Amino acid sequence: MENLNKTDIGLIGLAVMGENLALNMADKGWQVSVYNRTVPGIEEGVVDRFINGRARGKSIRGYTDIARFVESVAAPRKIMMMVRAGSAVDELMEQLFPLLSPGDILIDGGNSNYEDTNRRVALAEEKGFRFVGAGVSGGEEGALNGASIMPGGSVTAWDEVKPILQSIAAKASDGTPCCQWVGPAGSGHFVKMIHNGIEYGDMQLISEAYWVMKNLLQLNNEEMSSVFSTWNEGKLRSYLIEITANILRHKDKSGGYLIDKILDTAGQKGTGKWSVINAMELGMPLGLIATAVFERSLSAQKSLRESAAKHFVCQRTDVVYNKPEMVKDIYSALYASKLVSYAQGFAVLQRASDAFGWNLDLASIARMWRGGCIIRSIFLNDIAAAFEQAGKPQHLLLAPYFSNEMKQLLSGWKHLVAQAMKEELPVPAFSSALNYFYSLVSAKLPANMIQAQRDYFGAHTFERVDELRGQFFHENWTGHGGDTKSGTYNV
Amino acid sequence: MENLNKTDIGLIGLAVMGENLALNMADKGWQVSVYNRTVPGIEEGVVDRFINGRARGKSIRGYTDIARFVESVAAPRKIMMMVRAGSAVDELMEQLFPLLSPGDILIDGGNSNYEDTNRRVALAEEKGFRFVGAGVSGGEEGALNGASIMPGGSVTAWDEVKPILQSIAAKASDGTPCCQWVGPAGSGHFVKMIHNGIEYGDMQLISEAYWVMKNLLQLNNEEMSSVFSTWNEGKLRSYLIEITANILRHKDKSGGYLIDKILDTAGQKGTGKWSVINAMELGMPLGLIATAVFERSLSAQKSLRESAAKHFVCQRTDVVYNKPEMVKDIYSALYASKLVSYAQGFAVLQRASDAFGWNLDLASIARMWRGGCIIRSIFLNDIAAAFEQAGKPQHLLLAPYFSNEMKQLLSGWKHLVAQAMKEELPVPAFSSALNYFYSLVSAKLPANMIQAQRDYFGAHTFERVDELRGQFFHENWTGHGGDTKSGTYNV
Repeated sequence: MENLNKTDIGLIGLAVMGENLALNMADKGWQVSVYNRTVPGIEEGVVDRFINGRARGKSIRGYTDIARFVESVAAPRKIMMMVRAGSAVDELMEQLFPLLSPGDILIDGGNSNYEDTNRRVALAEEKGFRFVGAGVSGGEEGALNGASIMPGGSVTAWDEVKPILQSIAAKASDGTPCCQWVGPAGSGHFVKMIHNGIEYGDMQLISEAYWVMKNLLQLNNEEMSSVFSTWNEGKLRSYLIEITANILRHKDKSGGYLIDKILDTAGQKGTGKWSVINAMELGMPLGLIATAVFERSLSAQKSLRESAAKHFVCQRTDVVYNKPEMVKDIYSALYASKLVSYAQGFAVLQRASDAFGWNLDLASIARMWRGGCIIRSIFLNDIAAAFEQAGKPQHLLLAPYFSNEMKQLLSGWKHLVAQAMKEELPVPAFSSALNYFYSLVSAKLPANMIQAQRDYFGAHTFERVDELRGQFFHENWTGHGGDTKSGTYNV
Repeated sequence: MENLNKTDIGLIGLAVMGENLALNMADKGWQVSVYNRTVPGIEEGVVDRFINGRARGKSIRGYTDIARFVESVAAPRKIMMMVRAGSAVDELMEQLFPLLSPGDILIDGGNSNYEDTNRRVALAEEKGFRFVGAGVSGGEEGALNGASIMPGGSVTAWDEVKPILQSIAAKASDGTPCCQWVGPAGSGHFVKMIHNGIEYGDMQLISEAYWVMKNLLQLNNEEMSSVFSTWNEGKLRSYLIEITANILRHKDKSGGYLIDKILDTAGQKGTGKWSVINAMELGMPLGLIATAVFERSLSAQKSLRESAAKHFVCQRTDVVYNKPEMVKDIYSALYASKLVSYAQGFAVLQRASDAFGWNLDLASIARMWRGGCIIRSIFLNDIAAAFEQAGKPQHLLLAPYFSNEMKQLLSGWKHLVAQAMKEELPVPAFSSALNYFYSLVSAKLPANMIQAQRDYFGAHTFERVDELRGQFFHENWTGHGGDTKSGTYNV
């Protein structure tokens, strides 16, 4: 087949993300075909508006006929779908299949559920095509100027799509594109999902640092902004810390600080909850992200909280804090809790990798998140390094660099949490992380009591400290002969 | 149709639960038909063994032919299915449909997912039959002697099944059967699911009380057993507290305390996680139960914890505690955290009720849990009373009785948590509950920072304190004209 006068890639779905990706591709020198459906009365003239507007003068060709669109792309075709996650993707694939040639590649750049991607990769390959499920992070700005892109699926497609995807990806400070092959099936979308959960965690932690500074130290917005700016020059250097400093300083048209005018009811699009649900399915703890999701839900219950506040007035103590020392303790809590959150997230990735046979490269994933995406930070370099050392650590917090950091952070962290509890100030994520850490480093936990109870009332059996693992025992707890199951308690 | 010489109810599935329910029914005077499938080489002779064994001499008839089994039950037939949750239920229903008559009632007494029950109720009704999804709690002992039963589905079936189900249910101390109509569709199974989650929470809390007593007060098993026995005479009087006292005193054949020989790796059958997953789907906080689930998962990672304990040795302080006072503080933490857990669980039930149009009677549900089931306790009487008062409380903790309890418990609770944090002793559920409480009673939370960040990087918009709810605003944070989405930070 002649590839003369054909484009390098096709893109379907011209909402803002799709438009921005197409413009990004054109700016990097690619010839791009774009297509958007026409639904009378609902979606009309989308392609024309784009071609005559933002795409004017660029190497972008618009199509309103899907067959001509497919035809216009050079073989083996690379067609990127930027449509709403769910059945819309399946419907679009069914439309495209009859128009494709063997070896053609579909790329799903939407927020698809990884299990749907597992299914679509298998379906496409069955039909002789290839499928890439790519998590794309960085919002609309990232789509335009450089996103973090996490592709997985049909591995032979990587060589074909790599030049384009890496060209539109963000670059880390060492110039490396924030886009590498993740693994088979829906692994790319799985990694994106964990990224989204971690984003929730990072944001909750920053909000708690802000809250302690404001309520226990009575720092004003300028002072708090200064603290975040200072932190941004150290180990916490990251996009979210930077924008927090900007937000605290920002005044609106009336001349007042906008942060104080924003209602404290957090919205969510649901991406955080998916990481928690999947962690639970895999039997892995993801407590910090779960706390962040629940805290957003609770913040949304504003009128309930206002009623509750009338019943219970929180009592602050009359302690006068040494501000610089307290700010150090808040830093310790923030940094240590963030470490816990990432350790939990990467442990989930490792478990998924083992469970699904994906063979994920955790260092590579950490490096992909250094640019383009919301959680980008220098800290990810240290995480990548920890995973690359000889004798890969069993757990991120056991890597020498991080276990050393934790030792230094612990004192400030625990004092901050203990004091907040006495001050009746909520720090749910700092606390969740601290308790996780204490549990992690406990050779013994009180789960023996839980096992005893489960055997007592349900004969679920237990292992013994003085027997080999895998040997299960049941006790006759109540002396009622045979395998008695529970007591005779009646209310 | 003649009902002479026909049985009152049929039961399918003779694993221990099914057998015990059949025996329970016979003991209460009902005529029972039982059936179990025959699968050569896998399930053979099940009915015969039961009829000739435990069912000998009782009003139970065994069938190995499903058509004759159905035929033997009086109209309108009530057939209880006790088979493995999932597709086995659907397959059994398909087998039964051609054998049933209009108005016949299928009762699913297994651990089915409420969404499957929603579907099955609709399917059965479409075909002119009726369907009851009944949560059954109390394990094998409860099935034999009196369970907590939570039926929902086809409401006209209630009059038919009520006499049998209430006869085999546990009785609360006032004689009321722990079985009342829950609501439509899968509401019975939903309520069972929340019950299971609460059970996880109660067990985690007891384990934390045990852990503080053991590690900070160095109480021995007899002393701890005594504490739990004393608590069992007060407001915490419950089955789980009673068995905990028994467990701590229990010696095994070697003469040593068995609790100290049981390995600290908690198992789980997954029921706790389902309540958390559904709470998240409904946008409701269920942090204490999530913490309990995650803590079991972390306890299962025994070798990781043993490695981690070599890297970090927890430092206890040299504080000498006043034991009676500390035991009081532990009591406060346990009771207050339990209150939080139940408040969270009932709030999820209320949200589900509103979302699905179930019109649940929360007082009735609390009362159903007073007997038969693992979480049975006198505390549930207070909960039922709180929900029955005029002007139903917006939240359990805002009911006068409970808000008064919380005020008295707070001081001991917060000091216990703060001290545990300083002692590097994990109390994840006590802490999660305390932070939830502080967030609940905060008229303002730092979610304004989260909203500011979401608008800054993703133009997700925010509401304002000085505007009406429902008005959304976007800010041009970086001065880059139009609706700029995020900063220019690059690592």
